[in-house]
Order: sequence, then C-alpha cells, then structure tokens
Amino acid sequence: MANQEDKFKKVISHAKEYGYVFQSSEIYDGLSAVYDYAQNGAELKKNIREYWWKAMVQMNDNIVGLDSAIFMHPTVWKASGHVDAFNDPLIDNKDSKKRYRADVLVEDYTAKIEAKIDKEVAKAAKRFGDTFDKDQFLATNQRVVDYQEKINTILKRLGKSLENEDLVDVRNLIDELDIVCPISGSKNWTDVKQFNLMFGTKLGASADSAMDLYLRPETAQGIFVNFLNVQKTGRMKIPFGIAQVGKAFRNEIVARQFIFRQREFEQMEMQFFIQPGTQQEWYEKWKENRMKWHLSLGMGQDNYRFHDHEKLAHYADAAADIEFKFPFGFKELEGIHSRTDFDLSQHEKFSGKKLQYFDNDLKKNYVPYVVETSIGLDRMFLAVFSNSLEEEELENGTTRTVLKLPAVLAPTKAAVFPLLKKDGLPELAHEIIDELKWEFNVFYDEKDAVGKRYRRQDANGTPFCITVDHQSLEDKTVTIRHRDTMEQERVAIEDLKTIIGKAVAMKEWLMKMQ
Amino acid sequence: MANQEDKFKKVISHAKEYGYVFQSSEIYDGLSAVYDYAQNGAELKKNIREYWWKAMVQMNDNIVGLDSAIFMHPTVWKASGHVDAFNDPLIDNKDSKKRYRADVLVEDYTAKIEAKIDKEVAKAAKRFGDTFDKDQFLATNQRVVDYQEKINTILKRLGKSLENEDLVDVRNLIDELDIVCPISGSKNWTDVKQFNLMFGTKLGASADSAMDLYLRPETAQGIFVNFLNVQKTGRMKIPFGIAQVGKAFRNEIVARQFIFRQREFEQMEMQFFIQPGTQQEWYEKWKENRMKWHLSLGMGQDNYRFHDHEKLAHYADAAADIEFKFPFGFKELEGIHSRTDFDLSQHEKFSGKKLQYFDNDLKKNYVPYVVETSIGLDRMFLAVFSNSLEEEELENGTTRTVLKLPAVLAPTKAAVFPLLKKDGLPELAHEIIDELKWEFNVFYDEKDAVGKRYRRQDANGTPFCITVDHQSLEDKTVTIRHRDTMEQERVAIEDLKTIIGKAVAMKEWLMKMQ
Repeated sequence: MANQEDKFKKVISHAKEYGYVFQSSEIYDGLSAVYDYAQNGAELKKNIREYWWKAMVQMNDNIVGLDSAIFMHPTVWKASGHVDAFNDPLIDNKDSKKRYRADVLVEDYTAKIEAKIDKEVAKAAKRFGDTFDKDQFLATNQRVVDYQEKINTILKRLGKSLENEDLVDVRNLIDELDIVCPISGSKNWTDVKQFNLMFGTKLGASADSAMDLYLRPETAQGIFVNFLNVQKTGRMKIPFGIAQVGKAFRNEIVARQFIFRQREFEQMEMQFFIQPGTQQEWYEKWKENRMKWHLSLGMGQDNYRFHDHEKLAHYADAAADIEFKFPFGFKELEGIHSRTDFDLSQHEKFSGKKLQYFDNDLKKNYVPYVVETSIGLDRMFLAVFSNSLEEEELENGTTRTVLKLPAVLAPTKAAVFPLLKKDGLPELAHEIIDELKWEFNVFYDEKDAVGKRYRRQDANGTPFCITVDHQSLEDKTVTIRHRDTMEQERVAIEDLKTIIGKAVAMKEWLMKMQ
Repeated sequence: MANQEDKFKKVISHAKEYGYVFQSSEIYDGLSAVYDYAQNGAELKKNIREYWWKAMVQMNDNIVGLDSAIFMHPTVWKASGHVDAFNDPLIDNKDSKKRYRADVLVEDYTAKIEAKIDKEVAKAAKRFGDTFDKDQFLATNQRVVDYQEKINTILKRLGKSLENEDLVDVRNLIDELDIVCPISGSKNWTDVKQFNLMFGTKLGASADSAMDLYLRPETAQGIFVNFLNVQKTGRMKIPFGIAQVGKAFRNEIVARQFIFRQREFEQMEMQFFIQPGTQQEWYEKWKENRMKWHLSLGMGQDNYRFHDHEKLAHYADAAADIEFKFPFGFKELEGIHSRTDFDLSQHEKFSGKKLQYFDNDLKKNYVPYVVETSIGLDRMFLAVFSNSLEEEELENGTTRTVLKLPAVLAPTKAAVFPLLKKDGLPELAHEIIDELKWEFNVFYDEKDAVGKRYRRQDANGTPFCITVDHQSLEDKTVTIRHRDTMEQERVAIEDLKTIIGKAVAMKEWLMKMQ
C-alpha cells in the first residue's frame, strides 16, 4: 500500500515535471479537482482521443460522429432523470459549518476499523515470524473477526438505506456510530439531504426569460436528442452507432485521486441503436470489441478485468465495467451498458415528438434499444501515463526513468540531436526535422551530452532518438535509438520516415484489434 | 441584399439537410444561439481544428500546445479585466418586461432610416431608368442627404457615449429618438445598465466554501496563467508560442447569424511570447502568416481583407482583424493582437507570483510581451461551408448543388459505389473500402442510379466518387469522378490510395503556406 502511494505520488510529480498535467490556476493556488493538460499532456490526450475516434468512426461503416453542445435545453435533464436522481447524500456539521458526503463519513469510519485489523495483522506477523499465516489469523482471531463483522454490518445497512433512499436511517447510523466532524470534533449534525451534482447557470439576461441551464453531466443525452436527425439526414439503417467526445461536468463533493475524478472531465461515448430483443448479443459484442481496443495498446492483459454489475441503474438491463489496475488499485475505466429504450422513450414523453425508426426488414416502427460504451478520456490518460512510468535498474547499477508510452500515443515521436553544436551537424539535424515534421511531432535538442539528452527523452516518453554525427555528413546515415530497449542502429536518413511511420501509425496499432 | 439573405437561408437549410449543423435540443424546440455539429459537421470541424493545430504546433519548432480547463480560479477574471469590463449596455421596457441591448435599439433605429434611403434610391432608379446615377442622387437629393446626416449624428453620439461609459446619455438618446419597445410599443424604459457577459456557476456544495466560478469567456487566459510552467518544463526560449483550442462561453443578449455568434463556441488561440520592443515586427509577421494559412485553403483571395483597428482595447498596442466575406458581408473571422505585457503583469499583480523570463541573450529578467492570433472555429466553419456551397448551371440546362469544400477539410474523402447490386460488384466495392478506410473516411452507397448517387455526394462535399463496374472485375480498374470538374477517369484500384492521398493530405495543403 505504501508502495502504491509512493508510485502514485511519482506519477503526479512526473506529470508536472515533464509538462503533462498541471493543477488548474496554479499561480492562484489552484482550483480543487480541476487540471490543465500541459504541452505534452495536450498531445497525449489528443492522440488518445484520435485513437478512439478512428477505431469507432473511421473503422466502422455504420458509426458516425457528433459534436453536440455542452448547453442543452433544461427539459433534457428532467427526461434523463438527472434532475431528480443525480444526487449525493450530504450532511452538515453545525459547529464547523463543513459539509460532507454522508456515505463517505460512514465509509471513512469503517476504514478506521480496517486499519485496526491491519495493525493486529502486522503485530502478529512480527511476533510469529515465518510461521505466521495471515488467512488463518483473520479467520480465528476473535478481535479481528469481530472487527470484520462490524464493518460488514455497517456497510450492509448503509447500502440498504441508500438504495431505499432512507436518509433518516443514514443519519441514525452516523449517530449510532458516534461519528464526529473531523474539524469541530462535534456530533452536532444536520439531517442528511440529497444534493444534485449538476452545475447550474443562467442563459440570457432578460428579466422574464432567463433560463436555468445545466452543464451537461454526460455527453450521451446529446446523442439521444439528435438520434432521429442523424438517422434521417445520414440515411442510417439499424443497427448503427453515434459517437461523440466532449466535456462533461459534475459537482463532486469528494473529488480526489488526481485526474481520476475531476469536476470537469472529458467523455468518449458511443450509443449503438439496435432492434429490441437483440441487446444481449450486441452487449456481448461491444464488451469484446472494447476490450480488444484496450489490448491493442499492449499495456498488459493482466491490467484489465471485467466487472459485471449486479445492481443495475434504472435505465439498464445489463452493465459491465472494464476495470484497469491504476496505482491505487483496480478501478472503473470504461462502462458498457445495455440501456434499453429508456432514454429515447423518456425523450418521446417529455418532448412530445416521436423518436421511432421504421424498420424496412421488420416492416414496423419501434423505439430502438441502445447499447452504450462510455470511457473517461482523463481516466484513459491516467491509465496510459501511470502504466508507462517505470524506474529501470540498468546493468551498470544506475537507474533510468522511462515513460514507456505506446508509440502511437506518444506526444513526440522522435527527437533529433546533433552530436556537436558545430561542423554543420545542427544544420543537417534541422534538415531532417524539416522533412519529418510534416508527418510527425519531432523535437530538436542540442543541449548537454547525448547521454543526458537520451535520458530526458526517455522520461518524456519519446520512442525514438536520432543522432547526427560526422559520419552522417559523409554517408547520409544516422543513429536511431529505441527508447524501450535502448538499442541503437545505423540507418539511412531516407529510411527514417518509413521506420518511424511503421512504429507509430494508428493503422498499424488498430490492426491489432482485428 | 435579398440575394444575400436567400443565400444565407440556403446555407442554413443545407447545413441541416446534409447533416452538418442542427439546432441544439431541436426536439425541445431548440436552445437559442446554441448549435450541435451533426455527423458531417463534426468531421468538418475536426478537420479545421487539425489543420490549424498542425500549422501552429507541428510546423513550428517553437510553438507547443496546451489544453487547459474551462473552469479557472475566479481571480483570473478579475486580473484579466473581465469581471469589471466585459459588459453590454442593457435596458428594460417596463411594460413588456423585455430586455434589449441599448446600442442595438439605437442601431436598429438608424437601420430604419437607412431603409428609407434605399427606398428613395429604388424609386428614383425606376423613374430615371438608365440615366440614373446613384452616387449623384445620394449626394444631391436633399431628403437623402438629411437622412444620411441624421444617421451619422446618431451613431457618432452613441459611439462617444459608450466609449465614455456615459449610460445616462445613451438613455437620453433613446428618449430623444422616441424609440419604442417592439413588443409593447411603449417608451416606458428603465435606466441603461451594464450587464456582464460571463456565465456564472458555483463550485462545491459546502455551505461556507462554495466558490463562484465563471465559464471562461476566452481561452487565452488559460495560456497566460500556465506560461511559466510551460516555459520551464518545456525549456522554451523566447520567442515561443503556446497554442490552444477549446470552448468559451458568452452570454450574448443578441445572438444571431446562425453559428457566427453563439453563446457556446470554440476558439483557436495562440499566444506568442516575445522580447519587449519586438512586438511590431512579430505583429506584422503573424498577420502575414495567418493570412497565408487562410489562403492555403484556396477559397479566393478576394474573400479576405485586413481591418486595422483604430480604437484599441485596453490591453493592446496594435490590433487587426482578418475579415471574411460571409453571406451577410465582410465580418471578423480572426484577430491578431499585440497585447503588450498587460495580461502577464496583471496576473503578477493579482497572484503575487513573478511571471518573468530570464533572457540569456540579454542577461536580464523581464515580463514578456505577447502577440496573439485568435480565430473562432465556428466562424471558420461557417466561412468554409458558406463559401463552398454553389448552385451550378450545367450544360444540359439542369442545375446541381455542390459543396466545394477544400478536399483537405471534407468530412468524407471518397464514396465507393457498385454500379449494380449484384455480380460481385458490392463485394469488390467493400474490398476497396476496407483498404482505404485505414487512411481516409470513406462511404459506401448502393442505392439509386449512379447519377443520383453522384449528386448526393456533390451536395455532401465528397471530393471523389469511385464506381465499380463489370470491367473492374476483369482488369482491377475503377472510374474515379472528381467533384468540382465532374470529370471521370479510369484508374487502377491499387493507385486509389495515392491519388486520393495526394489530394487530401494536410501536408500537401500546408506546403502552400511556405
């Protein structure tokens, strides 16, 4: 655990130091749970977005794109259920005036009991040394068994109360556990109330007609309200999909874990419209397809797992997460949901417009069913970035920091170095850059010894370093060094475009999906 | 004028009919001045964005990207001047309860006088026929001369009052001109008040710590507050630039002209950091560079002009617009501004942090000066789309609607048709698509006669149509038809990738800038 925390801290500081992620408004001491993507981060994010878009829209005849606005008519969010049900249970302490998520207060309480268990385990392990059996200890030590039972009882009651929206019982639970405010230390709590997670704003200045708007909490609804217009103008036949990437906003009370849970974030969502009754088949297909997309990046099969939901959202008849092994454990990276006709039917009801499709094969009208794939772009960024960061022990006893980004996603594809700052080497390096820059992001560096320049590009995630030396002037060859293996080879300048192109082209990577 | 209006209406309806732009939340009767980009529009917008990004970031060694959040610390907008000065003068009618922009009320009044002049001109032209000289008439007809003088006097006074923030005089002017509310017909007006154009929202739910945020009204400030972090982590040397594309929001009271002036829109901005004293030189360079970018798209030199600002914003020491000939006349498409050290100095003052650069050549610290280029992505979309839409008279007396988008920006690069739906032609068409789709957006169509399919792709803006016929099965050739010339040629299937690639590759188009 300490190791995980250390690793995560390194990820965050590396992201800042190498121009990937900065805290928003840092010179004003930051804005909580909001981040800016810096010069390298902007490119990595852009490449992930493009890799998703190509896989969805360009590879599939029957999927088209959309770019709908963040502002939508407020009734959209009544129809979708967000106005009524997109809530967190909050509680205020009357002495400190601080507000908390009631469920998090209870969970923090059980985490403290968990810590006691850990302590008992550590103590026993020390006492018994090699003969200590943790599982046996957990099953037989009465104190530990009691602790575990207490945790289970609390969490079960909390889950049930939340499910039944019994906020009085959540409040009672907090009382019964004698939970105090971490700031004031008092138990002087208000009632638990639901708090809506949507950000509000007002459109228009007219005294009588200013409209209460929400910043969209998900991009999916932009697809649903445009469904019929896209289907008709694009002459789409079911089954077909609409894909979209865009910002969404949630006023999270507890926003933490770096860019994993932000108040402003970016989603990549695809809604696939199908015949009612075929949802199970498409749900399975899209689970498989999306996992293939992840695996095509070569970040390790063991880092992914499916988590099938037992408890389903009101709109879903099946749902699964693709979880990724983040520095803080396996967490949701993407969701695949069979949403039935819930959304389109709701919009029919609230808008009074028919949102039906005439199926030429079945010779009838129906409201299509929908299978959705929804991935957080910022989470994908964190998955790629944290998984790529390595401290490598080298043979000579030193270590190097290397960011082993999948080459297709790396912000800079190649760095070009003149061995020396003279003898025409910088000029030749620039000539090479002028040729390569039409195809790839390339970077020039002439400062410090070449070894040091290699290390900088390793830490930066650049897959190739190209060094121009005196031999280059004679025979038009250069040294190309591979980031991951540190192997170097001598190649012709005219072959660089092909070598790098082959390694970084989206086509080459996407073909692994097939 | 009527012709212009007709053209504009055609642009708007074509944008909807062919899946380029839909009104936001149309099934809920729309949201004023907010639009969604549909399946083709999303691709066109994406291609424009990429064309700008490549020209800025990838082509220039000394320009890097950024992707900062829409949410920023509220003090940013105090420092930038937006909290105090980003206002429109508004007035309410007490009877209708409707709110108006005071300056627009006055301008609408002068437009009515202008209409009278037009009427007089039309009458005289009819009376005098061929001998009618409009300029002479305007200069000598006393009634027309009086009208024109009245307009000039009113607009001069309005301009002066607004410049001096003399809102009382704006109100007096409305009274003196007897301007009535278009709804109630009454002159029962309130005072004129300044109304801030930023959208507000609240971050966090805590009773005591909820923070009043703004949705950014421009992307530039995200660059300024990150300037030092980017410079340091990217080891940038002045002169260098930071480029960013992103959403911005303005609560416009009078938002009209389709996507030209929206409440939610997208900017492409680049801030170039330079030595103080070199701003004139860089201002001229960037004016020239940006015009080259526009001209590289081949949309006609006569459609662009520079407009140098005489009245400068508080932060600028020079400013020019690149204006484009929209269907409603020449209007601002892009701005190039010499912003001095205004923004960085303001952020130094409000944040208490030094935002200085140590210049190794000059051996001293300074706050850099900034030259900015700022273009509206939605406006660029409208420029490209409206300029490309043509009704062509053909030799056979019929007309065709063709969207002559620059091929590099077209959403779909090629459509592939089997001549007939049998004999293995569809299969071969699909084989061609499976090969091409790795490189380009391609589209399959087998419905209706080929001529009709051509027309659909013309209206859609697709530069190439490829038809597979029986000969194709024998000799592996197809017909390729060019959208603009309607010329057809027989080419080998294996050459398609090269032919289309050459015509649509960003590299080929960007090279025209040099």
